Amino acid sequence: MDARFLNDWSGVAAGTPSEVHRPTNTDEVAAIVRRCQVQNQRITVQGGMTGLAGGAVPGDGDVVINLERMNRVEEVDALEGVMLVQAGATLQQVQEAAAQHGWMFPLDLGARGSCQVGGNAATNAGGIRVIRYGTMRDAVLGVEAVLADGTVVSSLSRLVKNSTGFDPRFLFIGTEGTLGIITRLTLRLQPPMGELSTAWVTASRFEALPELLRGLKLRLGPSLCAFEFMSGAFVSLAAPLSGQEPPAAASMPWHVLIEASGAPNRSADEELHAALADAMEAGHIDDCALASTIAHRQAFWRLRESIPEVLTHLKPTAALDIGMPWTQTADYMKEVGAALALAQPDAQHLFLGHLGDHNLHLISGPVDAQGLHAVDEIAYRALRGRHGTISAEHGVGRLKKPYLHMTRSPGEIELMRRLKQAMDPAQRLNPGRIFDDDKNGDTRCNAEPRSPP
Amino acid sequence: MDARFLNDWSGVAAGTPSEVHRPTNTDEVAAIVRRCQVQNQRITVQGGMTGLAGGAVPGDGDVVINLERMNRVEEVDALEGVMLVQAGATLQQVQEAAAQHGWMFPLDLGARGSCQVGGNAATNAGGIRVIRYGTMRDAVLGVEAVLADGTVVSSLSRLVKNSTGFDPRFLFIGTEGTLGIITRLTLRLQPPMGELSTAWVTASRFEALPELLRGLKLRLGPSLCAFEFMSGAFVSLAAPLSGQEPPAAASMPWHVLIEASGAPNRSADEELHAALADAMEAGHIDDCALASTIAHRQAFWRLRESIPEVLTHLKPTAALDIGMPWTQTADYMKEVGAALALAQPDAQHLFLGHLGDHNLHLISGPVDAQGLHAVDEIAYRALRGRHGTISAEHGVGRLKKPYLHMTRSPGEIELMRRLKQAMDPAQRLNPGRIFDDDKNGDTRCNAEPRSPP
Ligand SMILES: Cc1cc2nc3c(=O)[nH]c(=O)nc-3n(C[C@H](O)[C@H](O)[C@H](O)COP(=O)(O)OP(=O)(O)OC[C@H]3O[C@@H](n4cnc5c(N)ncnc54)[C@H](O)[C@@H]3O)c2cc1C
Ligand SMILES: Cc1cc2nc3c(=O)[nH]c(=O)nc-3n(C[C@H](O)[C@H](O)[C@H](O)COP(=O)(O)OP(=O)(O)OC[C@H]3O[C@@H](n4cnc5c(N)ncnc54)[C@H](O)[C@@H]3O)c2cc1C
Repeated sequence: MDARFLNDWSGVAAGTPSEVHRPTNTDEVAAIVRRCQVQNQRITVQGGMTGLAGGAVPGDGDVVINLERMNRVEEVDALEGVMLVQAGATLQQVQEAAAQHGWMFPLDLGARGSCQVGGNAATNAGGIRVIRYGTMRDAVLGVEAVLADGTVVSSLSRLVKNSTGFDPRFLFIGTEGTLGIITRLTLRLQPPMGELSTAWVTASRFEALPELLRGLKLRLGPSLCAFEFMSGAFVSLAAPLSGQEPPAAASMPWHVLIEASGAPNRSADEELHAALADAMEAGHIDDCALASTIAHRQAFWRLRESIPEVLTHLKPTAALDIGMPWTQTADYMKEVGAALALAQPDAQHLFLGHLGDHNLHLISGPVDAQGLHAVDEIAYRALRGRHGTISAEHGVGRLKKPYLHMTRSPGEIELMRRLKQAMDPAQRLNPGRIFDDDKNGDTRCNAEPRSPP
Repeated sequence: MDARFLNDWSGVAAGTPSEVHRPTNTDEVAAIVRRCQVQNQRITVQGGMTGLAGGAVPGDGDVVINLERMNRVEEVDALEGVMLVQAGATLQQVQEAAAQHGWMFPLDLGARGSCQVGGNAATNAGGIRVIRYGTMRDAVLGVEAVLADGTVVSSLSRLVKNSTGFDPRFLFIGTEGTLGIITRLTLRLQPPMGELSTAWVTASRFEALPELLRGLKLRLGPSLCAFEFMSGAFVSLAAPLSGQEPPAAASMPWHVLIEASGAPNRSADEELHAALADAMEAGHIDDCALASTIAHRQAFWRLRESIPEVLTHLKPTAALDIGMPWTQTADYMKEVGAALALAQPDAQHLFLGHLGDHNLHLISGPVDAQGLHAVDEIAYRALRGRHGTISAEHGVGRLKKPYLHMTRSPGEIELMRRLKQAMDPAQRLNPGRIFDDDKNGDTRCNAEPRSPP
């Protein structure tokens, strides 16, 4: 058995699968699923194994269907900007194929070289440009999927608008492989971005950031691409670890990496600089550094993307991807920061996030298995009453299942069960994920922490 | 019985409902639905009754739930640009409430004064700015809905990203009231658009338009807001009917209304003009008029939006909202135009559409009931093999049900039935719509044609 197929990045302990298949086309996937139905076997679906919620980790005796060999870019329509691709193609492959045809595939994330577009769809991945381009859901025009009984549903629409009844896409996007195995996708490409304008600003009070973001949205409209905030504590730790000089004093409480791009042939420098000058005058920000060269810009991003180094340094770590409205964030961080400092005084607790899409990351470490549990409890419980989510990004998988009820209503969870029952009554596809009660492989194994973003 | 509650704009003959309810809140809706369950009654859901597919037309004996009194804008978050609203609020109400708080609700369509945001969600309405802002689906962050058994599912998320299992939104958006009654929505507002730059161009060959659109997308990126094409025949008829002088010779085969807007404080004039100058040089367009005043702009749009006048003039009319990839459009129009001219030689057959979102409208008239059927048959059959859709915009409802199988695969339709069965096994909610076999009220009544867009 190939060890690669047994573990993903989540640290969830893997069971021993009974079989591992690497089909090359949809018919082969369907045949395996039909055989599993006859033999009453459970299936774990695997994409690029970069998931952070344990969803691709098999239970004991599972039949693993790994899509890595279904990696063909089948068609690129360079006129309209549409791509037909097998689900096992990596994100990077798709980005490169789009670029070769003069277009851009807008989804981007650190795991681009390994994660697959099928996995991106199954987890509705977000990444660093959600504020402008949305999540994977917005990039998928059509899907083909194999259902739990082996039926192939082909809904490879390539139309932007199609108002003919229920849209099969939404059964498979974001449902983490529990309702079907995505085998092919039609993807919507975007015009390449124009020249990028990048700035690094600091603020002494978090409360100023929502106002700053609102102002930028209203002034820059769709030109705004990124608004990534980091606590000073994160920057102080990340700077030496990544070998990057912080563009502003690391001691400032809050740092934000801001990026904008105008129409494809225009720079947004002028608008961005004017907006930031006004924000400075209004007292929303204290300092502002503009990236004047590509090397500057890359240095800014390297600092922001040094999360793997931070996680390694602080390991064992908890890494959460919660979400909540802007107005809740400052208060939440105060409450949770204080509770964590009390409960885990020897660990560091670092906040950062993509404010524009409501995503707040919390990195806590070093924490042992019990500490990990304590962090989860504190961080998830504090979401109550805040209109938040336990996962804005990485999905529920096996890891966050016990906490699902904290930010989904009983009605929502009951609806999920009802759908699962309709689509997969034997609980054959990815059992034990999201909400169901399977106990197989559910424990988090903290021995070998991996590095999430 | 109030006549308003019996007919919508589709011309579908209405049955006589047993009761008509106008609840004011979600609990009242749930109570009515529970009573219908006990008494085994069927329900027709009604929004603003502007639908063009007969979905809101009741069958004989139906209990009608009309949402017009559930029209409260409950909350506007002016910081983040999020609105909580009852489903019966009209689109115009929502647009105005957004504007009052410095934001914009991006969906817009001719029926704005009467159609409701709940109806917009149920039909996943598109409108004139899809190319930039997407459809209603992209504007809905969360929903509350009453299921067929009277359960209320609250999923009023206000987060841009939420990766916690199945997303209830997609059961209710675009499913035309067959899986639940939408009672409240959280809506995502957008920054107001910048100054608009509007142009009217003509082309002698339709084949040049996809190339023109591609060039504009790649050069203007998200600044491009509208790309509305019309045949010369449409312009020739619409000009005198609307009292607008065409901006270019109506005898030109193809006309396109193009609109762009830059960042909120910038005009996109320069980029648009440069792009059009290049398109002229490349021979993609023959003539180009720029709207230099607001009055010009309004005149351009009035010509494009004179469809109700055209329909009235040609009545009785067939008005279709099919869709297909750009590369199919020219060939499709040639084939279908020729077949229609043969089958209905005394009628006019006019094409126009939103090329960017694949939507092609066909207006044929005058045609009698038999002619109407002939137009449907010719236009829908010609979609086969073209990766198209029988409805890009208005939905299937009762009207297009017989043709659903032409552009949805058996697997897709089977999946729809399976979901319906799981959510509404007694076929209580909007029975006889989209795909089910109910015959009640299915006949198109052509006596009094109404005016779709
Ligand atoms: C360095 C790093 C950075 C990251 N950054 C981000 C980020 O910015 N934003 C973000 O959202 N995530 C991020 N992630 C998480 C992860 O990359 C994404 O969730 C990604 O979409 C998973 O894709 P995958 O192919 O690796 O899926 P896997 O890990 O293989 O699987 C994930 C889940 O999807 C299911 N699945 C996979 N393929 C299919 C299929 N074809 N059909 C049905 N179900 C399937 C699996 O069963 C499992 O439940 C990051 C991860 C790493 C390691
Ligand atoms: C002049 C004119 C211009 C138009 N332009 C466009 C356009 O550009 N783009 C476009 O897409 N459409 C257009 N339409 C069609 C129509 O306006 C849209 O389909 C609109 O979204 C319907 O909203 P409504 O509230 O009137 O719904 P209704 O007509 O009342 O109902 C439509 C369907 O939705 C269901 N429904 C209504 N409310 C709810 C609810 N709260 N919960 C569950 N189900 C519900 C009904 O049962 C029915 O099946 C136009 C119509 C007219 C008359």
